[in-house]
Amino acid sequence: MASRIPVAVLGATGAVGQRFVQLLAGHPVFEITALAASQRSAGKSYADACRWVIPGDPPPSVSKMVVSPLKPNIEAHLIFSALPADVARDVEPQFARAGYAVCSNASAFRYEPDVPLVIPEVNADHLSLIAGQRAGRGWPGFIVTNPNCSTTGIVLALKPLHDAFGLSKVFAFTMQGASGAGYPGVPSLDILGNVIPYIGGEEEKIACETRLLLGDVDEKEQHEAKISVSAHANRVPVTDGHTIALSLGFEHRPTPEEALEVLRAFRGPTDVHALPSAPVQPIVVRDENDRPQPRRDRDAERGMAVSVGRVRECPILDLRLVVVVHNTIRGAAGGSLLNGELLVKRGFVK
Amino acid sequence: MASRIPVAVLGATGAVGQRFVQLLAGHPVFEITALAASQRSAGKSYADACRWVIPGDPPPSVSKMVVSPLKPNIEAHLIFSALPADVARDVEPQFARAGYAVCSNASAFRYEPDVPLVIPEVNADHLSLIAGQRAGRGWPGFIVTNPNCSTTGIVLALKPLHDAFGLSKVFAFTMQGASGAGYPGVPSLDILGNVIPYIGGEEEKIACETRLLLGDVDEKEQHEAKISVSAHANRVPVTDGHTIALSLGFEHRPTPEEALEVLRAFRGPTDVHALPSAPVQPIVVRDENDRPQPRRDRDAERGMAVSVGRVRECPILDLRLVVVVHNTIRGAAGGSLLNGELLVKRGFVK
Amino acid sequence: MASRIPVAVLGATGAVGQRFVQLLAGHPVFEITALAASQRSAGKSYADACRWVIPGDPPPSVSKMVVSPLKPNIEAHLIFSALPADVARDVEPQFARAGYAVCSNASAFRYEPDVPLVIPEVNADHLSLIAGQRAGRGWPGFIVTNPNCSTTGIVLALKPLHDAFGLSKVFAFTMQGASGAGYPGVPSLDILGNVIPYIGGEEEKIACETRLLLGDVDEKEQHEAKISVSAHANRVPVTDGHTIALSLGFEHRPTPEEALEVLRAFRGPTDVHALPSAPVQPIVVRDENDRPQPRRDRDAERGMAVSVGRVRECPILDLRLVVVVHNTIRGAAGGSLLNGELLVKRGFVK
Amino acid sequence: MASRIPVAVLGATGAVGQRFVQLLAGHPVFEITALAASQRSAGKSYADACRWVIPGDPPPSVSKMVVSPLKPNIEAHLIFSALPADVARDVEPQFARAGYAVCSNASAFRYEPDVPLVIPEVNADHLSLIAGQRAGRGWPGFIVTNPNCSTTGIVLALKPLHDAFGLSKVFAFTMQGASGAGYPGVPSLDILGNVIPYIGGEEEKIACETRLLLGDVDEKEQHEAKISVSAHANRVPVTDGHTIALSLGFEHRPTPEEALEVLRAFRGPTDVHALPSAPVQPIVVRDENDRPQPRRDRDAERGMAVSVGRVRECPILDLRLVVVVHNTIRGAAGGSLLNGELLVKRGFVK
Repeated sequence: MASRIPVAVLGATGAVGQRFVQLLAGHPVFEITALAASQRSAGKSYADACRWVIPGDPPPSVSKMVVSPLKPNIEAHLIFSALPADVARDVEPQFARAGYAVCSNASAFRYEPDVPLVIPEVNADHLSLIAGQRAGRGWPGFIVTNPNCSTTGIVLALKPLHDAFGLSKVFAFTMQGASGAGYPGVPSLDILGNVIPYIGGEEEKIACETRLLLGDVDEKEQHEAKISVSAHANRVPVTDGHTIALSLGFEHRPTPEEALEVLRAFRGPTDVHALPSAPVQPIVVRDENDRPQPRRDRDAERGMAVSVGRVRECPILDLRLVVVVHNTIRGAAGGSLLNGELLVKRGFVK
Repeated sequence: MASRIPVAVLGATGAVGQRFVQLLAGHPVFEITALAASQRSAGKSYADACRWVIPGDPPPSVSKMVVSPLKPNIEAHLIFSALPADVARDVEPQFARAGYAVCSNASAFRYEPDVPLVIPEVNADHLSLIAGQRAGRGWPGFIVTNPNCSTTGIVLALKPLHDAFGLSKVFAFTMQGASGAGYPGVPSLDILGNVIPYIGGEEEKIACETRLLLGDVDEKEQHEAKISVSAHANRVPVTDGHTIALSLGFEHRPTPEEALEVLRAFRGPTDVHALPSAPVQPIVVRDENDRPQPRRDRDAERGMAVSVGRVRECPILDLRLVVVVHNTIRGAAGGSLLNGELLVKRGFVK
Repeated sequence: MASRIPVAVLGATGAVGQRFVQLLAGHPVFEITALAASQRSAGKSYADACRWVIPGDPPPSVSKMVVSPLKPNIEAHLIFSALPADVARDVEPQFARAGYAVCSNASAFRYEPDVPLVIPEVNADHLSLIAGQRAGRGWPGFIVTNPNCSTTGIVLALKPLHDAFGLSKVFAFTMQGASGAGYPGVPSLDILGNVIPYIGGEEEKIACETRLLLGDVDEKEQHEAKISVSAHANRVPVTDGHTIALSLGFEHRPTPEEALEVLRAFRGPTDVHALPSAPVQPIVVRDENDRPQPRRDRDAERGMAVSVGRVRECPILDLRLVVVVHNTIRGAAGGSLLNGELLVKRGFVK
Repeated sequence: MASRIPVAVLGATGAVGQRFVQLLAGHPVFEITALAASQRSAGKSYADACRWVIPGDPPPSVSKMVVSPLKPNIEAHLIFSALPADVARDVEPQFARAGYAVCSNASAFRYEPDVPLVIPEVNADHLSLIAGQRAGRGWPGFIVTNPNCSTTGIVLALKPLHDAFGLSKVFAFTMQGASGAGYPGVPSLDILGNVIPYIGGEEEKIACETRLLLGDVDEKEQHEAKISVSAHANRVPVTDGHTIALSLGFEHRPTPEEALEVLRAFRGPTDVHALPSAPVQPIVVRDENDRPQPRRDRDAERGMAVSVGRVRECPILDLRLVVVVHNTIRGAAGGSLLNGELLVKRGFVK
C-alpha cells in the first residue's frame, strides 16, 4: 500500500486506548497521526502521559508523540474513540460534526436508532444507516459503534446459530476479567480470591445490544430482534478474557452436532474475512470437555476469534455452551479496529 | 450434658475430613473417639498422617490420636464419612451392616431410593425412610446423606420460595471454589488467573439432588419434585465458597419483594433451629447490589448460613438471584454434622 | 469491669479504621463512643459512610453511629488514629494539645525523638518518653505510635534473638499482602498474577523503625540501635498477611537450635502478657519445612502473634528464617490497640 | 539453510517438554523428528498423550506424531531432555553412550565436574569440557546442561557485574511462579492467595550453580568461583515468571550508575549473539521504579531476555536490584535450546 490512512485515538492513555495503540502499531492500512486525551495528559509525551498497563512497552513509534487535547482539529481521516461514555457523549459528536469518521468503543451512542452498532462478521450491512445519520444530523462525518465486550463474544457465537435455527431465548452468565473495568478499575481487595456478582449496567447492555446486532435495519433505524435475553454479570479474578455460559432456545431445535456444524462453518461475509485484522476463523470450536478457558483461549487468532465449547443439550431450553472472548482485543479495541477496516473496505473512509 | 456421644470420622485425613475434625472440636454433643483413613494413613498419629490444608493447626485433642483402618470395629455410635465416592460405596454399607449410623458426605448412596438425602431445614422428614432402609436391607444401622456442596446452597435458598410459590424451573450457574475438589485437587496451573467451565458430574448432581431434596417421600422411597433444572458448573480462582447465579420460574410468579419476604422469614423446623450447629438464620439476605461474595460472605454464621442477594426480576423466567455457600462447611462437613445432630434430636442415634 | 473507657477512632471508615472498629467490638476495657472521619463522611451513619471491606459486616453496635468530623471535641479518653500520614500530621497534634491520649497507626510522628514508637512486648519502657513529650511540647495529652506492618512482624521475631545474641545485620525481603495499601489501594490489574517489587517508603521505614524499636531511650529521646538493615519490599497477590524472609548477623553466632529455643521461650513483660489483646505466645514457631504461610498462619492467636519458621544457617551471615504477620491486625490496628491497653495498664490513661 | 538438523525431545509431554515443542516449531535450524516420553505415553499420538498446559494448542506439525519410548534408537542428531532428574540420571547416559549430543534441562548431571553447565552469554567456553567428558567416559556422545530457572535469571544479570566489579557475595530472594514446579505441580489450595516460603533443593541449586557458571574450567573440570551465596526460595501465586531480589557485594564497589552502564552494554560473545534464539539484549534494563514485574516483563524478547530494575545501593553490601526471568522459556526450554544452537555454531553438532 502506497500510503496509509492517518488515524487518531481518543482516550489514548487509558486501558482500551493502549490496546488501540498496540494493535495499530505496524498496521498495514492505518497510521497513527495523533493520540488525544484529557487535559491532564495533553501536552505530555505519550510515554510520560500513559501508565502502560499491558505487558511490555508502548510501541517506540508512539512513545515520543505529544498527546493532543480532545479537539476536532486533528490530522486524521478516521478516529478511534476509547473515551469513557460520559466524555464520549460530548466529544464524539464534535468530531462527527467536523467531518471525521468516528469508530467508537464507548456506549454513549450505541442505542441511538441512526448509529450503527456493528460486528463486521455479524451485521456489516447496518453501515447503511450512515447515510441517514449524516442527513438527519447534518454531519459531514459520522459515528459507528461496536458492542460491549461481553456482547461481542456472545453475539459472534450466536450469529450462525441464529441464522440457522432462529434464536428466541438467551440466558447469559458472564465471568468477566478485571481489565473490562479499565485502569485503575477494580480494587485488588475486592477481587483477589473473590467473585463480584454485579457489574453496573452490564446486564442491560448485553440484552439490548444482542437484540440490536441480530436485528434488522431499514433506511432510517435499527430494529431489535425478537429475542428474550436474561443476563447475569459477574467479575472474577482473571486479568483478561470473559467467559460466558449460555443456555439457548430456538425456533427450530438443533442437536448439538447440528449446532457444532454451523459454528465450525462460520466465516462471515467474504469482504470482511479479507480484512487485515479479521481472524481466519471468527469462531474456534474446542472439543475438550473443559475448554474454552480465558487464560488458554483468549489469544486465539491474536485475540480476534471467540472460542466456543461444551456444546450440549439444555434440560430446559435447547442448547448449552461456553464462549470465551478477549475483552480488550475482540471485545473492545480490536472490534473497533475491524469496524474501521470495514469502513475503508466499503468506501466510507478513504 | 453428662456425657457426649462417641463419633468417628472416616476419611479423616482428606480436606473434608479435616473440616469434620475442626467442627467436632469442642462440640457440645459429639466427641471424636476414632479417626479412620486408608491403609496409607492407618497406624500413624493424626498429625503425621494428615497434611493439614485448613488455616491454622489440627485441634490439639486429636493430633496424637492414632488413625484407625476403615474397619467397622470402631467405638462410636455415629459415623461421619468424608470418603471418596468409590471407597464409600464399599465401606459405608459395612458400617451400616455392623449397626452404625452413618452420616455420609459422599455421593455413593445419595440416589438410592431408600437412603435419605437431607438438609435439616429443608426435608428433615425424609428421615422417615430409615425404617424401610433398615428393614429392606437387613441392616441394624443405616446411611443418611447430605447433598453436594453447590446443591446445598441452591436448595437452602430455594426451599422457602418453593414452598410459597411453587418452583418449576431452575437455571443454576455456579462459580465454585477450589476446595470443592479436595486436596491436592485442582492444579494451580489450571486455575491461577483462569476459569475452568467444567466440573465432572456436577451438573447432573445439581439437577437430580435438587429434585430429591424438594420432593416427597412415602414409606419406601423418595420421589423427585417436578422441577426442571439446567446447571452450568464452573471452577474459579477462589479457595473456599461457591457462588451461584440463579434464574427461577414458579407456578405463582412472586415479585422480588415477595421473594425477599419469604427468604428473610425462613427459619426451618423448630427442632432443627435449636440444633447446636444450626444457624440463627439459615438464609442471610444481603441488600448491597454487589453481594453476596464468596470471600466476604462464606463465613456467615460460622459458614452454616447461605447468603442471598441481587433478588430481581428475570426477563425470561420470574426471578434472578445470587447465592453464596461455604462449600466445605455448610456444603460438606457442616451439613453432614447438622444431619448427625438431627439424628440425635429425633432419636435415631443415642 | 464496672465501666469501660470511652475511645474514639479517627479515620474510622478506611481499611485500618475498620479493623479498629472490628477489634473494639465487645472489648473488655474500651468502648467506642465516637467514630471520626473526613468531611466527606462526617454526618452520615457509619454503615452509610463506610464501604466495609473486611469479610462480614460492621458490628451492629456501631452501624448506626453518626460519623464525627476530625475535631478534638469528642467524648473519649483515648484516641486510636488510622489516619493517612498527611492528615495525621495536622490532626493528631490538635488532639494531643486538647488533652487526648493518641495511639497512632500513622507514620507521621514515628520518627520524632520524643514520640514513643512501641511494640508492647519489645519496648514498653519507651513510654517513659511521654513525660518529656508533654513537657517539651506543652501538651496535656500525648502521642504514642506503633510501627509499620512489616516492621512489626520483623521486630517481634527479632527481639528475643537480639536480647540473646546481639543483632548486627538484617536483610529483610518482604512479600506483602494487598490490604497493606488500604482501600481502594492496589489496582487489580497491577497485582493479579503478578509481583510488584516496590512499595514507596517501605524499605526506609523498615530500616529506621527496626533500629528505633530495638534501641534505647533516655529521658528525652529514643536512640537507634547499631543495626544495619537492608530491606527489599515487594507486593504479592495475597489479600492479608505479610511474609518476610530474613538473613541475620549477630555478635554471638547462635545455632538454629539456640535461636529456636529463645524464640519459643519469648513471652514479653509480665504486665504486657496479661493485656486483653495480647497473644499467649507472641511468637509461634512452626516446625514444618514450608511454613509459615500467610493464608494459613496470619490468624494465629486472632492475628496477634507472628509465626516464625525455616530457622536455618545462612551461608553469609548467621541465620535465615521466615516470619508471617497479619498486617492489618498485629501490624496495624491490633498493634495500636495493644499500645492503648498498655497505656491503661501503666496508668497513662484512665 | 538447505536442510534442518533432526532433533528429539525427551519428556516431551511434560510442562517443560511442551515449551521445547513450542519453541522448536518453525525453528530455522532444528526440526523435530521424534518426541519421546515414558511408557504411559509411548505409542499414542502427541495430541492424545499430552495434556497441553500452555495457552493455545500444540503446533499442528507435531500433534499427530507418535510418541516414542525413551530408547536411544531415535533418528536425531541432538537430544533436548526435559526429563525429571531421577529419570534423566538413567536415560541421558544411555543416549550419550549411543552417540547422541544431549542438551539437558534436568539437574541430574549439572554438578558432575566434566559436564558443562552453560548459559551461552555467560560461559560458552565451558563447552571445552566436552572432549574430556567423552574421553573419560568413553562416550561417543555427550551431555551439556543448563542451570535451573532461578539461577539462569540471576547469573545472566550478574555476569557483566562480575566481570566488571568482581562479585563476592550474593543474597538472592526468589518469588517463583507455579509453572516452575511442572504439571500438576503445586496444588491450587496451597498457592491461591498464599506464599509458600520453601522449594525443595532450590536454595542449594542456586548457590552451587551460580558458582559453577561464574567459575572457570581447565581441561578436565569446572571450578566454582569464590562467591558466597545465600538464597531464600519462595513460591508465589503467579503462573509464569520468577522475580528475584538481590543484594550484592563486590571486590570493587560500583555506583548504581556504573552498574547500570555495564548491564545496559552487555551483549555476550558475538557468535552467541547471532544465534537464532538469542535475544538482541540479554539484559533489558527497566527505568520505572516498580519494574520489572513477572506478568509485564517475562515475555521480553520472546521470553529470552532477563529484565533488571531498581538498581540502587545496599545499606549492608554494595548494590540491590531486581531480576525477572521467564522460568519455562529462558529458565528452562529456551535456555537449553540456546545451548543446542551454540553446539551447532561451535561445531559440536552437525
